[in-house]
Amino acid sequence: MKKIMNAPEAYTDDMLKGIYAAHDGMVKYVNDDLRCYCTAHKKEGKVAIITGGGTGHLPLFLGYVGDGLLDGCGVGGVFQSPSSEQIYNVAKEVEAGAGVLFLYGNYTGDIMNFDMAAEMLDMMDGIETRSIVGADDVLSNANVETRRGVAGIFFMYKCAGAKAAQMGTLDEVLAAAQKAKDNTRTVGFALTPCIIPEVGHSNFTLEENEMAFGMGIHGEPGVWNGPVKTARELAEESVKEILEDMPLDHGEEVCLLINGLGATSQEELYILSGSVTQLLKEKGIRVYRTFVGEYATSMEMAGASISVCRVADDEMKEWINMPVHTPFYTQV
Amino acid sequence: MKKIMNAPEAYTDDMLKGIYAAHDGMVKYVNDDLRCYCTAHKKEGKVAIITGGGTGHLPLFLGYVGDGLLDGCGVGGVFQSPSSEQIYNVAKEVEAGAGVLFLYGNYTGDIMNFDMAAEMLDMMDGIETRSIVGADDVLSNANVETRRGVAGIFFMYKCAGAKAAQMGTLDEVLAAAQKAKDNTRTVGFALTPCIIPEVGHSNFTLEENEMAFGMGIHGEPGVWNGPVKTARELAEESVKEILEDMPLDHGEEVCLLINGLGATSQEELYILSGSVTQLLKEKGIRVYRTFVGEYATSMEMAGASISVCRVADDEMKEWINMPVHTPFYTQV
Repeated sequence: MKKIMNAPEAYTDDMLKGIYAAHDGMVKYVNDDLRCYCTAHKKEGKVAIITGGGTGHLPLFLGYVGDGLLDGCGVGGVFQSPSSEQIYNVAKEVEAGAGVLFLYGNYTGDIMNFDMAAEMLDMMDGIETRSIVGADDVLSNANVETRRGVAGIFFMYKCAGAKAAQMGTLDEVLAAAQKAKDNTRTVGFALTPCIIPEVGHSNFTLEENEMAFGMGIHGEPGVWNGPVKTARELAEESVKEILEDMPLDHGEEVCLLINGLGATSQEELYILSGSVTQLLKEKGIRVYRTFVGEYATSMEMAGASISVCRVADDEMKEWINMPVHTPFYTQV
Repeated sequence: MKKIMNAPEAYTDDMLKGIYAAHDGMVKYVNDDLRCYCTAHKKEGKVAIITGGGTGHLPLFLGYVGDGLLDGCGVGGVFQSPSSEQIYNVAKEVEAGAGVLFLYGNYTGDIMNFDMAAEMLDMMDGIETRSIVGADDVLSNANVETRRGVAGIFFMYKCAGAKAAQMGTLDEVLAAAQKAKDNTRTVGFALTPCIIPEVGHSNFTLEENEMAFGMGIHGEPGVWNGPVKTARELAEESVKEILEDMPLDHGEEVCLLINGLGATSQEELYILSGSVTQLLKEKGIRVYRTFVGEYATSMEMAGASISVCRVADDEMKEWINMPVHTPFYTQV
């Protein structure tokens, strides 16, 4: 295992210390717990949006805490859920009189802890919450309800964050997240595994020139392992899966997110992006806006994911285009 | 070799097609040559700043073309210089009546081609140029004049771009770049090699748990190969080299750039950033502003570099803080 770190057991907290030191004044932590990550710019009367999840996916999850996006994040260890107490403490800190939306990925541990935090907020503080999970990974499950959440959660963050910044009500912010969820699908693939620092070796191997199509961001098995395909072939297979699950009519507009899983170069992401854009064009689908980069990673895993977010209406365009500013992501 | 691409020989042009498709309206190319990369927002009367260099270092070089930074970029093949004709054509397009600054990395092929382009601009068009090279890599050469340029060129881009945006004269913009150059030093290290697509294998290997301290972004040999050190040890050794070359007094302020070489996770970069910041604090040096991310890469190389830019005066703070917006880098 080759990682720039001090000790495997210090990985998450050393990372957090680095983040707070680098971005002092933008983010902070509460309850003397580095893992209770909050915006430093709380806005009274605004719905607070809270996310959370394991470390190892930067900029997911905490990287989206900032102006125009989210308000707080419970930070778990590598690939582990934050505790319900951490989520509760973050929520208590950032709640600003308009209730709390929990918006996170569809993973069992996270659901359990967010649900418990919601109960605590209700019973102890009378704070109203709503919950919604990202579940965009088409190949993780045929059943929409039990799909994993991956990079497509970006569009849920963006739409919900924009609606909250517009001072929408809790139910309106939830509806914005739901609209993004209903219209977003993702397909991903890995070229190499990654290593959990405290484990020290990867849980699976891929041969020289072998890839895993449909693999999850924690190394969950995909739908096939085989030789690495070309960018155009990967675009074709991914878009086919996405369109079978979410049919798009000729003339419709989408936002496209080409996400790197960690070790894949930006050069390759743009090669892939070019192939996907060309393919959609051939199908009569217009790309309204393209996002390319690392949005949801798996540490040093090589690979990428393709997310398509159907532009449902003009309101959604407005949400997607609204400026945001966090230590990890700025859009003007 | 595992890369998401269509064919090794199409790597650079497919990447460029993807970039133009994703960021239509922000950047364009001229002379029917994808590799003549220009801003779409030319501003009359402003000094034009042009960079260039090989593909494989995104967001370097072309990623810094945009509002508040650079105006054009000659794009070479992977790790190859752009041609003098390409540089010339970019310069002709973006020159806006105030002359041209060539600002690029200190590599022989680039110097030859930029110099030739400068001669062509002078002789054929009467366009005035100045040239300055980034040469911040402390461990590449004891002689400051012959050092390689690496991630620290970001601060030269930022200061020169700001001065040009303030409508400074050609010599003032050159002086801003020079001020950043004089005050910036970088040390880098690699944990894995990278592979040039058309070669298909790396030119060197690093053993399991072996790293190369001082290695260049094209795989140029470093000063030692040995077991991977901790983040704190790497911070100490890097900062020692930087401060021996550019002594800093107790109480001085610096900007810090922690740059990932491609495959290294953002988590690790923040662990390293935390260690460097803590170490500088112990030495009485204040970090004024921290930049963490991928600023100058080597495709899928794992590793990082540490750049320290001494804050020379308030003018430099103003330049560093000025908003910029390119498809690859936005600062508000």
